[in-house]
Amino acid sequence: MTTSISIFDTTLRDGTQGEGISLTAEDKVKIALKLDALGVHYIEGGNPGSNSKDIEFFRRARELNLQAKLTAFGSTRRKNSNCEQDVNLKNLVEAGAQAATLVGKTWDFHVHTALQTTLEENLAMIYESIAYVKRHGMEAVFDSEHFFDGYKANPDYALAALAKAKEAGADWIVLCDTNGGTLPSEIHEIVSRVSGIIQAPIGIHTHNDCELAVANTLAAVTAGARQIQGTINGYGERCGNANLCSILPTLQLKMGYRAITDEQLKSLTTVARYVGEIANVVLPVNQPYVGTAAFAHKGGIHVSAILKDSKTYEHISPELVGNKQRVLVSELAGQSNILSKAQEMGLTVSTDNAKSRDVIEKIKDLEHQGYQFEGADASLELLLRDAYGDSIDVFTVESFKILVEKTHSGIQTEAIVKLSVGGQQVYTVAEGNGPVNALDSALRKALMQFYPGINDIHLSDYKVRVLDEKDTTAAKVRVLIESTDFKDTWSTVGVSSNVIEASWEALIDSIRYALLGMAQSDYEPEAPRESLGLVNH
Amino acid sequence: MTTSISIFDTTLRDGTQGEGISLTAEDKVKIALKLDALGVHYIEGGNPGSNSKDIEFFRRARELNLQAKLTAFGSTRRKNSNCEQDVNLKNLVEAGAQAATLVGKTWDFHVHTALQTTLEENLAMIYESIAYVKRHGMEAVFDSEHFFDGYKANPDYALAALAKAKEAGADWIVLCDTNGGTLPSEIHEIVSRVSGIIQAPIGIHTHNDCELAVANTLAAVTAGARQIQGTINGYGERCGNANLCSILPTLQLKMGYRAITDEQLKSLTTVARYVGEIANVVLPVNQPYVGTAAFAHKGGIHVSAILKDSKTYEHISPELVGNKQRVLVSELAGQSNILSKAQEMGLTVSTDNAKSRDVIEKIKDLEHQGYQFEGADASLELLLRDAYGDSIDVFTVESFKILVEKTHSGIQTEAIVKLSVGGQQVYTVAEGNGPVNALDSALRKALMQFYPGINDIHLSDYKVRVLDEKDTTAAKVRVLIESTDFKDTWSTVGVSSNVIEASWEALIDSIRYALLGMAQSDYEPEAPRESLGLVNH
Repeated sequence: MTTSISIFDTTLRDGTQGEGISLTAEDKVKIALKLDALGVHYIEGGNPGSNSKDIEFFRRARELNLQAKLTAFGSTRRKNSNCEQDVNLKNLVEAGAQAATLVGKTWDFHVHTALQTTLEENLAMIYESIAYVKRHGMEAVFDSEHFFDGYKANPDYALAALAKAKEAGADWIVLCDTNGGTLPSEIHEIVSRVSGIIQAPIGIHTHNDCELAVANTLAAVTAGARQIQGTINGYGERCGNANLCSILPTLQLKMGYRAITDEQLKSLTTVARYVGEIANVVLPVNQPYVGTAAFAHKGGIHVSAILKDSKTYEHISPELVGNKQRVLVSELAGQSNILSKAQEMGLTVSTDNAKSRDVIEKIKDLEHQGYQFEGADASLELLLRDAYGDSIDVFTVESFKILVEKTHSGIQTEAIVKLSVGGQQVYTVAEGNGPVNALDSALRKALMQFYPGINDIHLSDYKVRVLDEKDTTAAKVRVLIESTDFKDTWSTVGVSSNVIEASWEALIDSIRYALLGMAQSDYEPEAPRESLGLVNH
Repeated sequence: MTTSISIFDTTLRDGTQGEGISLTAEDKVKIALKLDALGVHYIEGGNPGSNSKDIEFFRRARELNLQAKLTAFGSTRRKNSNCEQDVNLKNLVEAGAQAATLVGKTWDFHVHTALQTTLEENLAMIYESIAYVKRHGMEAVFDSEHFFDGYKANPDYALAALAKAKEAGADWIVLCDTNGGTLPSEIHEIVSRVSGIIQAPIGIHTHNDCELAVANTLAAVTAGARQIQGTINGYGERCGNANLCSILPTLQLKMGYRAITDEQLKSLTTVARYVGEIANVVLPVNQPYVGTAAFAHKGGIHVSAILKDSKTYEHISPELVGNKQRVLVSELAGQSNILSKAQEMGLTVSTDNAKSRDVIEKIKDLEHQGYQFEGADASLELLLRDAYGDSIDVFTVESFKILVEKTHSGIQTEAIVKLSVGGQQVYTVAEGNGPVNALDSALRKALMQFYPGINDIHLSDYKVRVLDEKDTTAAKVRVLIESTDFKDTWSTVGVSSNVIEASWEALIDSIRYALLGMAQSDYEPEAPRESLGLVNH
């Protein structure tokens, strides 16, 4: 029989401790709905005792009718006090969540140094706090902070703290590697021992300070842990928490445990990218299972083998986690990469086709000039569509001008763009916080009348790289631009000895790519609409 | 007795298979020097058989007198052929490296499907190729591709392939988890068995497709592997290779193995960030051990506990890997680094000095704004000299203008600079192949009359990075400029929401740094010498 594992997601609580992660109550509601669809069993929403934003989230979340158990986080009561007088605990039970996670000390050093109280008082704090939330009808999860360090320092005391939580009615005893410093072999040994002593369901909560959070979680499961606490994309304080996006597929596809359905597992990539979008964090391309490069192949030999049988270089089928295979085009790769890319786009190609040979020659020539298409999928797609006669060309560029002026009072940048769109001349000027930004604004201003959808697009990243450092006077630069319309993200490339020209080229590609399939407006402007005051005086 | 582990770095070969990673021969030379100082034992520089850029790297690397063994990578010979006629193997032995890594098949499925040859021919390919590089006086490392999958499918054949490599004289037998799909428990079991059968030093090469590359490497070491193949920051194809920046500290600080010296380990953070800068890849803030958030503590309970005793929330002392604690309330770490840097420059400093406190505050404030001085030594030196009153200020900038004009006939860029030098106004105009190049030319033209030596200086590298991807309209950019006078090389930094202003700042720092100690000319210009035709009409 397959063993079931309970998934406890703490993206909305511990995840927000990560540097650069900040979520509004609205963000949290959106993420909670996705987590619920993914099939996690607990959604820890925040700390209503310390945070009014979290109280607001719990108020709204109660109305969502989640399948998952909504969980509120808090600490055991203050020392030398009682639960009824503890404002944090009061807010916690009033949040309306079904479960409470209470974090308590199990490391004697922490009781003395951080809490500055006695070992006995800490045990009372644990017992009374768990009993308090149980009295209020909540399920109780006990997070034993620094359990592994505590167990190594003083196993009797660490176990006594767990026993107190159990005695007070805790439904889960969760062993936390709070500092993230424990090794998988230690985790396995200690979880095995605890499972033999404490007669309660055991959970595991790890951090990634040694890049071992996933391994530690899996080691705990093989040693008997049945609840996994972690976050989407491994968000969390310092180096992050255990990454559920890596744990879930390994657990189900490789270790034979069961946590969510196969269908839910197929939504994993979407969930990971969605949470990244909401948290406004760029997902690392190389993120295991869900990153855009997780099943991307660059080496020519790899690619030709992949085309023979994808099992040659893929440990799982990417579709099982909702991801897909990608073939990168680069100097290291051969013609097989390029053709499979064209096929992905639905273009009819064959190796003995003159067109195909031409486009491969052209790409090799461009790569020789310094272009790099592996980071610029959209430019490659345009190039292939152009070659196979499947492109659109809605505007031509007549000219542009850029003026930058720096004085004691500050810096000003303006760009003037002259386009021809469907036979009409369009002349626009815009300011920007740099020449590329100003060009981008002027260009979009010119096209917005024809393609209103262009308003939703903006540059999300811009990278410049000098290519040939030996010959600096004629050095070429490569510019990579990433653009987004809030749904999709695409990358384009430009190369020139002039950084502005290279940027312009990447910018034009970005806009051309966006226009593929974008609806044209009915609105037809009659003449150039922008004042040219700036260039006329 | 402490067991020694041999570190085989493949950042320059397998690392460049990572999406977005592209290194010039010059980049590779720079990184090789850092790796050598870090104390790795093998530096795999590339694939001279398939890549002319790599031949160039090996040519230059031979002159560096590295302590590490320079290693060239290649495949076993082509099927149904011989080594003497194999161009790739010929290029490999001619690269002048001390060691060769040869990758060969050990998985029968791959022999049939990817190579499309017989099991016997594959064994001959392994034997003859290893014997060939040994005959050419090279140390031979055999990378057994897909070993773990191969062993699981057909252990007899996988072991026979290893035995062939050993018989031909391989110095290291490296077991590769090429697809990154194997679990730590499997790695431990299989490496243990192989160690008992194959009487040769065993190495381990893992990939991060399950977020387990570090755990898998450590599991192999405890099972008897004595060489670790990995990359700085875990760069590599798909989800990356095993991250040496996480493995080295855990191996030495937590597991009692020995690979590099304690002093070398203290350079780890600098090396990680340096390689990231050269590769133009943003280092994740949450990267274990070396990330800027790895020892960062957000407010509240953690901070107050950290201030009582940093052992409460830190699994190791950050100084052991050259990183530092970051606490928002009182950031005292890093002070000693900065002061020792000032002392290096011959400035008299002390910790209880108001000046020292001010300069530390200023640096922290600038870092908070996005400056980064690790890749910009010259800017840091100027800042310290300014603070201690040891700077020279030979010119002030009144204003500058940039004009870029693109028409059908090409692109033109001009910069106009107005300086005040020793009370005199100097007004120059220059063309360039981009705004920064034009500004640089105009600036040097203005100062050349006073400092003829400035003629020898030129920009050797220019990098732009967007810092805050969330708020793109107000996104900041950081510009790093590297300059050289053919003897020395120095780097400077600028940050602004306007890329031109950021570039200008880095440019001014570069010139100011160059002027330190440069002899002033006797020649005194009388008046602004350049025509202003361009701005007057």
